[in-house]
Amino acid sequence: MGVVVNLEGGRGRKSSLEPLIELVSDDLKAVNELIVQRMDSPVALIPQLAGHIIAAGGKRMRPVLTLAAARMCGYTGTRHLALAACVEFIHTATLLHDDVVDESDLRRGLASANAVWGNKASVLVGDFLFSRSFELMVEDGSLDVLAILSNASAVIAEGEVMQLLTTNDTQTGETAYLDVVKAKTAQLFAAACRLGAVIAERPRVEDEALDTYGMNLGIAFQVIDDVLDYSAKQVTLGKSIGDDFKEGKISLPVILAFRRGDDGERAFWRRTLEDLEQTEGDLEHAIHLMARHNALDDSVERARHYGAIARDALGIFEDGPHKKAFNELIDFCIERAY
Amino acid sequence: MGVVVNLEGGRGRKSSLEPLIELVSDDLKAVNELIVQRMDSPVALIPQLAGHIIAAGGKRMRPVLTLAAARMCGYTGTRHLALAACVEFIHTATLLHDDVVDESDLRRGLASANAVWGNKASVLVGDFLFSRSFELMVEDGSLDVLAILSNASAVIAEGEVMQLLTTNDTQTGETAYLDVVKAKTAQLFAAACRLGAVIAERPRVEDEALDTYGMNLGIAFQVIDDVLDYSAKQVTLGKSIGDDFKEGKISLPVILAFRRGDDGERAFWRRTLEDLEQTEGDLEHAIHLMARHNALDDSVERARHYGAIARDALGIFEDGPHKKAFNELIDFCIERAY
Repeated sequence: MGVVVNLEGGRGRKSSLEPLIELVSDDLKAVNELIVQRMDSPVALIPQLAGHIIAAGGKRMRPVLTLAAARMCGYTGTRHLALAACVEFIHTATLLHDDVVDESDLRRGLASANAVWGNKASVLVGDFLFSRSFELMVEDGSLDVLAILSNASAVIAEGEVMQLLTTNDTQTGETAYLDVVKAKTAQLFAAACRLGAVIAERPRVEDEALDTYGMNLGIAFQVIDDVLDYSAKQVTLGKSIGDDFKEGKISLPVILAFRRGDDGERAFWRRTLEDLEQTEGDLEHAIHLMARHNALDDSVERARHYGAIARDALGIFEDGPHKKAFNELIDFCIERAY
Repeated sequence: MGVVVNLEGGRGRKSSLEPLIELVSDDLKAVNELIVQRMDSPVALIPQLAGHIIAAGGKRMRPVLTLAAARMCGYTGTRHLALAACVEFIHTATLLHDDVVDESDLRRGLASANAVWGNKASVLVGDFLFSRSFELMVEDGSLDVLAILSNASAVIAEGEVMQLLTTNDTQTGETAYLDVVKAKTAQLFAAACRLGAVIAERPRVEDEALDTYGMNLGIAFQVIDDVLDYSAKQVTLGKSIGDDFKEGKISLPVILAFRRGDDGERAFWRRTLEDLEQTEGDLEHAIHLMARHNALDDSVERARHYGAIARDALGIFEDGPHKKAFNELIDFCIERAY
């Protein structure tokens, strides 16, 4: 019981993304309309395929960050709508290319675009969305915005290549893992948040605070995502686990279990994740080893650390509903683990 | 003999890309250095893989178009160097993604990046080069330039998806083929040329003339490329032919032979290109059918038409070495067929 109270931070209810979404719900509706409108093309496969992955859609967390950051910074115009759509297009393009990359068959429970339409279409429609995103930015007309998102895009691509190199390599340490997470996931969170301060023309200190918030929120989010792939909670929710294990992804729980394990355990990790020689019961054994070494709980502790940095970064903003909801988002990202 | 004279247009020597390259050779050297410098990354696989495909490099035709167009328009600054590098990065990213797409094993006689490093790396390094290209444009700081190249990128991606849909479909007609060629190939030629007028701040009429030149040169170039894939000349040069046939690409020579053929011939095209049921001798038979219906020569005639439009578009520019070399480039693109 004590453990449960500790894990849930003593709160009576689970934290949620909802408060932030509610604060920007009208804006988000406009962004969703803009997304549908701007992913259109006379080449029918493009809206079909893009619509499939955008509808599967998930939580629209990244565009919500842009919308809410702009509002928290006192922005009253409409530029944040197109830029939130840009951020979602870049994210969707990354997902489509990641489908090729990870040979994943399922994403968010729906058949991946890749499985339905093939590698080729996923690559090309991703390219289209990526280009369309830059067209939207050019229409917005701010070189500052273009600099932020073109840089983020290059860093994301670098992160994806880095991940390719660390996959199946049990030598990968926590630093290399973090470098990938920062580049591949957290950079877009940071960019999405910063855009709010940039279009509201807020001072540099607020731009940097939102950058720090987004970066550390993104790290926490990805670490928990990696924990969930080995989590009993996912199983009880009917979600699949073990995708990372199947692919031989060297995520933080693996790194901790590997470093804390003995020679026999390391041989197990090498066989299953480097050589990808996996048999029945291996995933269960991996989870067992992680439990033995507290790898999942300690990964969550690491995530809490980044969450704490994110929270303190927001300290310079005035208290209010947006700041409150941004803070609750940190809790939500971490409490997903339970 | 009469035929040979006719085909070579009565000229004593073959036309070449060289005069244009010579006119911008110092600029091109600077562009090549910039390319090496800006494709660098701490993630070593990126310069390795990008370097492989950029070194294989071909003729640098697209950046040369930008450099020469800028000079013909009287531009005396240095912005054209970075923008020529942008154009080459976009082209290279497209090649890398095309490698995934076409499952081609060989490009320009070297092992394709895809064959050496795999699909995943080709997609991601392509993404990196594409993002890097936008970073270079943002550094240049012109929204006009960004609009031209972000639009070109979106159109190219649309063209690639269109091509995906026409591949293996013998119902594809000449108009649909042209739509793909314009989007996939000619759009970047047009953008590369236009950039010269834009940075030289020339009047709209010159911008449009270079756009028309590039678009029609690009169409002529691609039509001849498609002819060469069935051409005896390629065989005598030791180059491989039949890649398009193997993939079931519906190119102009196929379209003409199919439309001019009888029921039995159409059944042959359907079996080989739609069902991809190919046996020994099929490629030779395809070439035989093309010869029967004059499909290759008439494709070259079509290319000449686009070449003529390109030539007339340049009429508004003053005579001089650049205009002369641009005109020779049209001849070169077409005479490659012989």
